[in-house]
Amino acid sequence: MAEVNRDRTPRVVVIGAGFGGLWAARTLAQGNVDVLLIDRNNYHTFLALLYQVAAAELEAEDIAYPVRSIFWKHSNIDFTLAYAWRVDLQNRIVVTNGESISYDYLILATGSITYSFGLPGVAENAYCLKTLEEAVALKNHIICCFEAAAREEDKAKRESLLTFVIVGGGATGVEYSGALSELIHGPLVKDYRRVDFQSVRIILLEAADGLAANMPQSVRTYTLEKLQKMGVDVRLGAKVREVTPNAVLLSGQDNITTQTVVWTAGVKGEPLAELSGVSTGRDGRVPVRETLQALEHPEIYVIGDLASIKEDTRVLPMVAQVAIQSGITAAQNILRQISGQALQPFHYHDRGSMITIGRKSAGVAIGAKTYTGFVAWLLWLVIHLFNLIGFRNRMMVLINWAWDYLLYERAVRFVFPSEMPSLSKSSSCVRGGGLGNESIPKR
Amino acid sequence: MAEVNRDRTPRVVVIGAGFGGLWAARTLAQGNVDVLLIDRNNYHTFLALLYQVAAAELEAEDIAYPVRSIFWKHSNIDFTLAYAWRVDLQNRIVVTNGESISYDYLILATGSITYSFGLPGVAENAYCLKTLEEAVALKNHIICCFEAAAREEDKAKRESLLTFVIVGGGATGVEYSGALSELIHGPLVKDYRRVDFQSVRIILLEAADGLAANMPQSVRTYTLEKLQKMGVDVRLGAKVREVTPNAVLLSGQDNITTQTVVWTAGVKGEPLAELSGVSTGRDGRVPVRETLQALEHPEIYVIGDLASIKEDTRVLPMVAQVAIQSGITAAQNILRQISGQALQPFHYHDRGSMITIGRKSAGVAIGAKTYTGFVAWLLWLVIHLFNLIGFRNRMMVLINWAWDYLLYERAVRFVFPSEMPSLSKSSSCVRGGGLGNESIPKR
Repeated sequence: MAEVNRDRTPRVVVIGAGFGGLWAARTLAQGNVDVLLIDRNNYHTFLALLYQVAAAELEAEDIAYPVRSIFWKHSNIDFTLAYAWRVDLQNRIVVTNGESISYDYLILATGSITYSFGLPGVAENAYCLKTLEEAVALKNHIICCFEAAAREEDKAKRESLLTFVIVGGGATGVEYSGALSELIHGPLVKDYRRVDFQSVRIILLEAADGLAANMPQSVRTYTLEKLQKMGVDVRLGAKVREVTPNAVLLSGQDNITTQTVVWTAGVKGEPLAELSGVSTGRDGRVPVRETLQALEHPEIYVIGDLASIKEDTRVLPMVAQVAIQSGITAAQNILRQISGQALQPFHYHDRGSMITIGRKSAGVAIGAKTYTGFVAWLLWLVIHLFNLIGFRNRMMVLINWAWDYLLYERAVRFVFPSEMPSLSKSSSCVRGGGLGNESIPKR
Repeated sequence: MAEVNRDRTPRVVVIGAGFGGLWAARTLAQGNVDVLLIDRNNYHTFLALLYQVAAAELEAEDIAYPVRSIFWKHSNIDFTLAYAWRVDLQNRIVVTNGESISYDYLILATGSITYSFGLPGVAENAYCLKTLEEAVALKNHIICCFEAAAREEDKAKRESLLTFVIVGGGATGVEYSGALSELIHGPLVKDYRRVDFQSVRIILLEAADGLAANMPQSVRTYTLEKLQKMGVDVRLGAKVREVTPNAVLLSGQDNITTQTVVWTAGVKGEPLAELSGVSTGRDGRVPVRETLQALEHPEIYVIGDLASIKEDTRVLPMVAQVAIQSGITAAQNILRQISGQALQPFHYHDRGSMITIGRKSAGVAIGAKTYTGFVAWLLWLVIHLFNLIGFRNRMMVLINWAWDYLLYERAVRFVFPSEMPSLSKSSSCVRGGGLGNESIPKR
């Protein structure tokens, strides 16, 4: 076991302020340890609602919460805004873009990133939905497509601007397809009188033979039928082989001309562990002991999406509940380790899973029971609202939802020029600063 | 007078969706004209509260409103998201970064931009407060200064990070100084336990011998005393001669070492008119007839900040009320011009002016009467809330204000990496995307 200098308070460094990192830090706050939480953002992101930001339903600020505020009352928890480049395992130092930070115990909670499976053109030409910035960029791009379509004379170009392809029929792909359909056929119809909405196509591509693979069959069937009713063109068994700036190329099917490809088909572990020489699987995730320690490093714990946690025959899924529960267990084990107690194995309590398709429609699976439709949607609404951090965020989300669901209107349709995307080169979208700031360039 | 083809509906192009442009378009909606409103943003900005965005008091979305939504019900008003490069006066065409747009009548409402008076280093090294983007960039920079100060070992560098210089003692400079003081000595004290707040200096530089030059003397005195009580170091008669990346250099006074210079000392007319060959004064504003027509172009009207409107001996100030009223008059005159009626001269109705210093303190001048303190602040609050466009924006602002003024807390302290500024080169602030998106660069 690791030698720790007993003359001073042990220092625990937590990398990543997602659900796992936050709950680990919160648990450690009760112990006699100094905790340093590192993240490259100064806010925590509630990823479950990210797709709503990308669909102009919520504002970015609604699902973000400043990390420092969470730990105002905990004097043994500090925060540093920094990007962790790698971990020096030998000397127990985290090397960041700023200072180098030494640790006695380390919790790796850097989560997961989008994975393209090496398919050509995905990295260059597709939009992703894993960070707040990506969600805002995608939202801006969608609005810009309509702005461009409103003044495009060429029919083929206009249709390409109005074709939106989502790749991946998991939760993110399903939820974004539904939300996009409601955005376009709701508020945008009123905004763009010059656009022919008959030309709009929302296409969801899934390589397997069904959507929402990890849900019970009744929910999967409901999801497919509901999306089709909402006008989403769901194509099962559709295998993408390349994404170009203007099209998605499919294996054995017609290519789709489009300016918008949203890639939700794959994720893998964030590369910090791999870059630092911690053993990872092919999916970039770190296999851990049942105590959540890295196999060769008892002073390092790995939690959340980044951890490959085996339970019985399965590897636990990349969901918030696993992150929260593993964060708590890892923190408790560190406190036990320091006081010389036996470590406890991690047991996951599955509280069920849910997927939402749109207004008044969702699917919920709890144990052997499943619910679909309005009741499931209400349940989804309440649970997500409750899990948001901060009363103010809850209120803002509630107001935005009320506006959206009751008035069928979405207020957050701004394109800030600094966020201005990303139509392909032929774009006629405006780039650059706001009206009248040429004389003073930003430094 | 301009020849207009009577066989079709006359087309009025309005450039700029500020207060002037919006009210002009709204007035024209009643007439038998086709209106095209052009702006490089797809939203209108409520500039009077811009400084609150820069002080993390409001979110950018709270003071922005999508232009297309404003004119949902007016079928003769269209909008184009584009940047107007110049006006071809001869052929009556607005040349934009997208299409070229012909007009029968043109309303120039492009407003004003920051002016450095040609002082060296201002354009490169100072922050401005004229656009929503600039406000967000400034807010992010302030937060980054505190993040950097929290881990800076060098005392001199730390003090430089914690010194904030605002140049210009007009309304924007005064209001931002007060708001910044409340941000720093309120929420940020709780956020940054490792920072010595005794080192924080907020310095307001004004070249003249008093603040808020266009207010009555009692309000000016109140403003000065109030700011000083809030810990703002107000320096009158302070003439800036240069801004460097790390300092403000003054004439005949000690230089100030700082990472943050906010330039609110000068504005001039937005250059579109000048670039198009319309006669402008030295301040870039366009002298107009009393009907608001450009001197040599009866088919072109100029309104708001861009217009140099003489009334009696004075030129009207660059304020929202002048923009709104001149926008209405210009639109009415175009409708009169089309129907062959006599044009009406513009008369400005001064409804008074106000300035706010901070929580519960403002100054108001209406006619010969002045008010200061809590009552003036309440008046300021109600009037600004009332003048915001959109019920939803009003509600959001009200919630944010309640949070701020009642709970002394501000929720909007995020730094989105895409907006990430701008500390000088030695900055240790994080740059780049969110955690874990390296594998998929944005296109």
